[in-house]
Amino acid sequence: MSLDDVIVRALEEDAPWGDITSEAFLPAESVAAASLVAREPGILSGLGVFARVFELVDASIAVTVLAHDGEPLVPGTVLATVTGPARSVLRGERIALNLMQRMCGIATLTARYVDAVRGTDARIVDTRKTTPGLRALERQAVRDGGGHNHRFSLSDAVLAKDNHLAVLAAAGIPLGDAIRAARAKIGHTTHLEVEVDRLDQVEEVVSAGVDTIMLDNFTPEQLRAGVALVAGRALVEASGGVNLDTVAEIARCGVDIISVGALTHSVRALDLGLDISVS
Amino acid sequence: MSLDDVIVRALEEDAPWGDITSEAFLPAESVAAASLVAREPGILSGLGVFARVFELVDASIAVTVLAHDGEPLVPGTVLATVTGPARSVLRGERIALNLMQRMCGIATLTARYVDAVRGTDARIVDTRKTTPGLRALERQAVRDGGGHNHRFSLSDAVLAKDNHLAVLAAAGIPLGDAIRAARAKIGHTTHLEVEVDRLDQVEEVVSAGVDTIMLDNFTPEQLRAGVALVAGRALVEASGGVNLDTVAEIARCGVDIISVGALTHSVRALDLGLDISVS
Amino acid sequence: MSLDDVIVRALEEDAPWGDITSEAFLPAESVAAASLVAREPGILSGLGVFARVFELVDASIAVTVLAHDGEPLVPGTVLATVTGPARSVLRGERIALNLMQRMCGIATLTARYVDAVRGTDARIVDTRKTTPGLRALERQAVRDGGGHNHRFSLSDAVLAKDNHLAVLAAAGIPLGDAIRAARAKIGHTTHLEVEVDRLDQVEEVVSAGVDTIMLDNFTPEQLRAGVALVAGRALVEASGGVNLDTVAEIARCGVDIISVGALTHSVRALDLGLDISVS
Amino acid sequence: MSLDDVIVRALEEDAPWGDITSEAFLPAESVAAASLVAREPGILSGLGVFARVFELVDASIAVTVLAHDGEPLVPGTVLATVTGPARSVLRGERIALNLMQRMCGIATLTARYVDAVRGTDARIVDTRKTTPGLRALERQAVRDGGGHNHRFSLSDAVLAKDNHLAVLAAAGIPLGDAIRAARAKIGHTTHLEVEVDRLDQVEEVVSAGVDTIMLDNFTPEQLRAGVALVAGRALVEASGGVNLDTVAEIARCGVDIISVGALTHSVRALDLGLDISVS
Amino acid sequence: MSLDDVIVRALEEDAPWGDITSEAFLPAESVAAASLVAREPGILSGLGVFARVFELVDASIAVTVLAHDGEPLVPGTVLATVTGPARSVLRGERIALNLMQRMCGIATLTARYVDAVRGTDARIVDTRKTTPGLRALERQAVRDGGGHNHRFSLSDAVLAKDNHLAVLAAAGIPLGDAIRAARAKIGHTTHLEVEVDRLDQVEEVVSAGVDTIMLDNFTPEQLRAGVALVAGRALVEASGGVNLDTVAEIARCGVDIISVGALTHSVRALDLGLDISVS
Amino acid sequence: MSLDDVIVRALEEDAPWGDITSEAFLPAESVAAASLVAREPGILSGLGVFARVFELVDASIAVTVLAHDGEPLVPGTVLATVTGPARSVLRGERIALNLMQRMCGIATLTARYVDAVRGTDARIVDTRKTTPGLRALERQAVRDGGGHNHRFSLSDAVLAKDNHLAVLAAAGIPLGDAIRAARAKIGHTTHLEVEVDRLDQVEEVVSAGVDTIMLDNFTPEQLRAGVALVAGRALVEASGGVNLDTVAEIARCGVDIISVGALTHSVRALDLGLDISVS
Repeated sequence: MSLDDVIVRALEEDAPWGDITSEAFLPAESVAAASLVAREPGILSGLGVFARVFELVDASIAVTVLAHDGEPLVPGTVLATVTGPARSVLRGERIALNLMQRMCGIATLTARYVDAVRGTDARIVDTRKTTPGLRALERQAVRDGGGHNHRFSLSDAVLAKDNHLAVLAAAGIPLGDAIRAARAKIGHTTHLEVEVDRLDQVEEVVSAGVDTIMLDNFTPEQLRAGVALVAGRALVEASGGVNLDTVAEIARCGVDIISVGALTHSVRALDLGLDISVS
Repeated sequence: MSLDDVIVRALEEDAPWGDITSEAFLPAESVAAASLVAREPGILSGLGVFARVFELVDASIAVTVLAHDGEPLVPGTVLATVTGPARSVLRGERIALNLMQRMCGIATLTARYVDAVRGTDARIVDTRKTTPGLRALERQAVRDGGGHNHRFSLSDAVLAKDNHLAVLAAAGIPLGDAIRAARAKIGHTTHLEVEVDRLDQVEEVVSAGVDTIMLDNFTPEQLRAGVALVAGRALVEASGGVNLDTVAEIARCGVDIISVGALTHSVRALDLGLDISVS
Repeated sequence: MSLDDVIVRALEEDAPWGDITSEAFLPAESVAAASLVAREPGILSGLGVFARVFELVDASIAVTVLAHDGEPLVPGTVLATVTGPARSVLRGERIALNLMQRMCGIATLTARYVDAVRGTDARIVDTRKTTPGLRALERQAVRDGGGHNHRFSLSDAVLAKDNHLAVLAAAGIPLGDAIRAARAKIGHTTHLEVEVDRLDQVEEVVSAGVDTIMLDNFTPEQLRAGVALVAGRALVEASGGVNLDTVAEIARCGVDIISVGALTHSVRALDLGLDISVS
Repeated sequence: MSLDDVIVRALEEDAPWGDITSEAFLPAESVAAASLVAREPGILSGLGVFARVFELVDASIAVTVLAHDGEPLVPGTVLATVTGPARSVLRGERIALNLMQRMCGIATLTARYVDAVRGTDARIVDTRKTTPGLRALERQAVRDGGGHNHRFSLSDAVLAKDNHLAVLAAAGIPLGDAIRAARAKIGHTTHLEVEVDRLDQVEEVVSAGVDTIMLDNFTPEQLRAGVALVAGRALVEASGGVNLDTVAEIARCGVDIISVGALTHSVRALDLGLDISVS
Repeated sequence: MSLDDVIVRALEEDAPWGDITSEAFLPAESVAAASLVAREPGILSGLGVFARVFELVDASIAVTVLAHDGEPLVPGTVLATVTGPARSVLRGERIALNLMQRMCGIATLTARYVDAVRGTDARIVDTRKTTPGLRALERQAVRDGGGHNHRFSLSDAVLAKDNHLAVLAAAGIPLGDAIRAARAKIGHTTHLEVEVDRLDQVEEVVSAGVDTIMLDNFTPEQLRAGVALVAGRALVEASGGVNLDTVAEIARCGVDIISVGALTHSVRALDLGLDISVS
Repeated sequence: MSLDDVIVRALEEDAPWGDITSEAFLPAESVAAASLVAREPGILSGLGVFARVFELVDASIAVTVLAHDGEPLVPGTVLATVTGPARSVLRGERIALNLMQRMCGIATLTARYVDAVRGTDARIVDTRKTTPGLRALERQAVRDGGGHNHRFSLSDAVLAKDNHLAVLAAAGIPLGDAIRAARAKIGHTTHLEVEVDRLDQVEEVVSAGVDTIMLDNFTPEQLRAGVALVAGRALVEASGGVNLDTVAEIARCGVDIISVGALTHSVRALDLGLDISVS
């Protein structure tokens, strides 16, 4: 689903047969000028999405973007201006804000995690716990906040998790064999990652040849032991129990990657406003 | 966009060309049984969506629903079981959880607001600050949490807000005239609501004949004065500055409706798990 | 389905793999100028739709609109001009006319009903008996003809009809209880209407609290009695047996709303022509 | 657009976010049985469409079809039965009737034209003046009424009309040359028809080699002269000014084909009812 | 599916969430100019498709077309130029080439067949053995190569093949009767063709009245006998066993039509390159 | 685009408004049984697609699959049987064969390349030169033929080609810097590959840190030198000038990956037949 699809569907959802308020209240010829303003600090994300909403609502709307994604938000600063028919500006307002406030919320939260691990080599990455239909936008917001993306989907990297290991165990297939068989089948550009939840699984996984090993719900001591065991033979990803209170200590354990579901599954919309003046 | 559309798109987004992990790791014939379990208290919402995800992934999956939307969640209780080919169960897991955790999060938050105003006549209602593409699901979650829905979209009720009033003012059209003209144009089933942000606007609006008047960002004293002024001639909706600390006092001001954007714009996913056993 | 969707689908339906006549007969460089002309009197509706068809066929076509929806049609008057590549103009002609002739037909018929009740307070409204896929256009045509719209769909107002009442009766649920329960569930912007087909049902319905009561297939005397009974506590809608011979008498019974299925279910296309000159 | 697409879109149009009346009023477990009954005479068309609507609404609905498209309708006869959850039956009712009443209306009108030309060799055929989105259904209804179909679209037969001839004339291309050039380009399965509006055009067109010549708005005498001139070298189609008063005389002129726009552009919905009983 | 649909889907397939190489490697402001060059001889087809790909990728790209479909390709000649943002040019490159190389391959192969039958009256035509989703483009390529199109689909001409005849035989329906019954049902613009695989079937088919008879897998002698038997009463199509070695002899048997599945089912992409220079 | 989408679109393309031959010729109640038979040797691919076509045409068709993708085809062997209404079986026949013949053609060609490099460590992989809309099917066919897949799309691996390098050069950005910057931006699961066309570029690329280096259009001696230079620090992919005559020598140069555009851009459909018997 392309960005335009996301926006067109959102607009249709928000007005399946027109904006009856504007039709009933507003003169067709009224023109409005609006300013997008941050009402709280944070990290900017989604200006392109914001602009595209208005372009798709009405090609006669002019949007001027005055800032860049990834920049810090200073409350009161004008981030973009929107000028056009009042009915059209009001038609796009809510959808543009709904999308952009979510993206800024994600970027802002991501930046807090990234700040927390500054000075370590750990990367903050997202997960598949994204909002259905909005994954591409939410991943962009993570990048705007200074984070990195994990695999986009089930199709572009192998990540065998506890449930896969349970199926293998039930089928009597040794994990190392399974990893080697998988490597032989997948393309040479496909990353191979396996999750373990116990230290004693690490050696079998790493020696079978993975690109990344995920240590799930390990304590800091276990993480340090895991990193030592892996000894550079694969990247090490920490997951589970990550929050702003714990992330710095996790990072200092020497892991390469820290995945944080909360970046996208529990988002507080950042407060942005569209201040409209009329002429 | 129907529920099936939402789910099909989410599934495609999550695996545009297949789940390469399952293909590489899991025997095609492995069968998995999974239990949906709450990991924290809250209000249940979205069991039908959860079940429908698996039906659309693979018609041979059997889902048994053991609870009802709107019920309180007891951590550890099994809410539903899912049995079928392991590849298919894992294919649907993340999408089913992503949708349902969000719905439970909304229902749970809504219930907290509803509890806070218990004993008053005020209704807690949602807004258009919903996730693009998921509005129908989020509205259902609000209802499951004991809240009520505001208008679904720009198409099904008139709500003239500050921006509309500004356009009218710029065009030199008295608000009372605009309200009467709108009433003459709209259908007899169309609700007419107008937002004001000052007490001195109330009389003009109410005497022009509205179904609901929204008092935006009023202090409690202003709300009480507004309710008195309206005197039953219209429903009174309070909006702005509503949170769990303020909502009870707002409700006690005698308003009929309290709209809360946070119900849907800042959702914390509720923790649910799909515990999988393999045979 | 947006207007553009309706048009794009109509164009695809009309030429799934091109207009083989134009390709075989017309020089690619020929330019045509066309005039949209009414060939019979009536009420104009759908000029925006007409223009949009040609814009979607070929962005290089210029359409100039010379009249306004809702105006009376004077046979022979040029309503719009269309200039562009001959192949493109002919490509759009039939679809533009098919849509607009239907809309003018509806507007014209609606205006006859509206004229027939002039001097009363009754509104002429449409129903859900619209052409699948074209409801939004047909509703606009009703408005252009001076009528009003009933609810758009099953989603935006409650209208309990005879079949609903039968289900309630079979379930042993008193109608008044059902109305009160429904009111408690629906949003504050949702209109609540109930249909009755006997006078003795009126009091129970009105006293339970509805916004509109529909009196279905009532004789004029029954309608007058019904209006008296309701006594202003709800709007009164008359339905059933409404035609141009009966509508004036029905209106004089004091009802607020008269719904007419024939406005959209039995439409005679108004005769419009696209006169093409070639250069 | 397949039949399922037509129905799914119609259902979505009729309830973008659910049937709030049924949700508010009807117990989820209520079951309804309904009978489709004709309320006036005519020709049956669209039973398959009717049944498919309910199948798509809810796979648990059982539809039993008791008649066949093309049969005469006897008022009061039960044409089909529908049994299933009351909410689902009511959900599909209006769309099923909207589609089928239109199809029966078309079939009934077509049959009147076909009856009027009985005893001649003339066929009654439809035109491209169909309802956007419903052409396939309307063509089926014409066949059910005993008529035949003209080309489906601009893609499957060549029909050069007055506007094409005007473009050729402006480009200085003799019509006979154009016809021969077109024949050389089009596929061997593609029918080639040319419209003329004057007798003196007939010989040039026929001798250039067309499959059908359309005589547009000819008087009966002109039609007879045209038929004589063509002398079996091509099929002859009469169009323009065809109505139930004129069609018999036109047919007796010896034309092969009579095209009637009114079959589909001005349809009166036939009165059908869905009588619901509840258990 | 329109051309734009084909292209948009191809672009989405080729980058469901963006071109991560360009994002990671290329400055957003870099501009590229590219030349489309043939690397081997052949027949040109698909320049409009090529140009449209870039228009849909980025409206700011300028495409200048310097040749025409149907012309011979001279290796090294520049066929079109493309100038625009480097990221956008590279985004469209592969899809534009994938589509156009296929079309040129088809046109080139078609031209070889057409050349082989030059001097006879036989037409080279395509079949339904086209690439799913690309039939319209592949048919255009056949025309660009000098061939003609057979029916587009199952909907626009009748072609009864061996399997249909087998069903009729099993049902005890004489073929002549079936042909006459079909003719009575189908529209007057619908072409009626029947396939036979034995000489002794010819007379029954032709005398029942078909527009074309297909002689499938006939030897040259049988073809000559078949043409003699038909004696101008229908077009004669040869099919089966047609390749560049046999087609000339088949054509000299006097058939009107030779259908060649290989035109579209076994295509060698023609070598085209997009040479990019950067500024 | 899911497999079902591909099939549904292909079916609609092949019969936008029904199969008029079957409707005109075949009794609705006729039943057909068909056997899928290979008519030439090769490798089987696409049985699941074949079966799905018929399931989507008519749920009452029974398909029994008697072989497995990847197996060698023995001419005359029955691969699957299809039984159902004759109209439905004929409706799906052409599309099922069009898709499956292409897949078998690709698998068969791939197997020839894989056979040619047997005994070396080189993998045969596909490219993005696939048929628009069919990439997922064509990739599966490559795997069924024993090949491996390269990246699926522009979104799931970085591959900087000559054009990217040219843009970097024009922008004055050293390649090594660009590679290091890209690595810092992309996710940890994203593969990073760079193409070079000269030996002297190898060291800069490899020492900057890539996962794979593509040596484009290298002679065998250059390939050997390249492999020696890389010395295991990255995978080595050979591309350009690969055909069945050259691939073995290329493989013996010690490269890891050999990409072959011809696997998918120039496919000869494998000859399969659906032999139908009627009852």
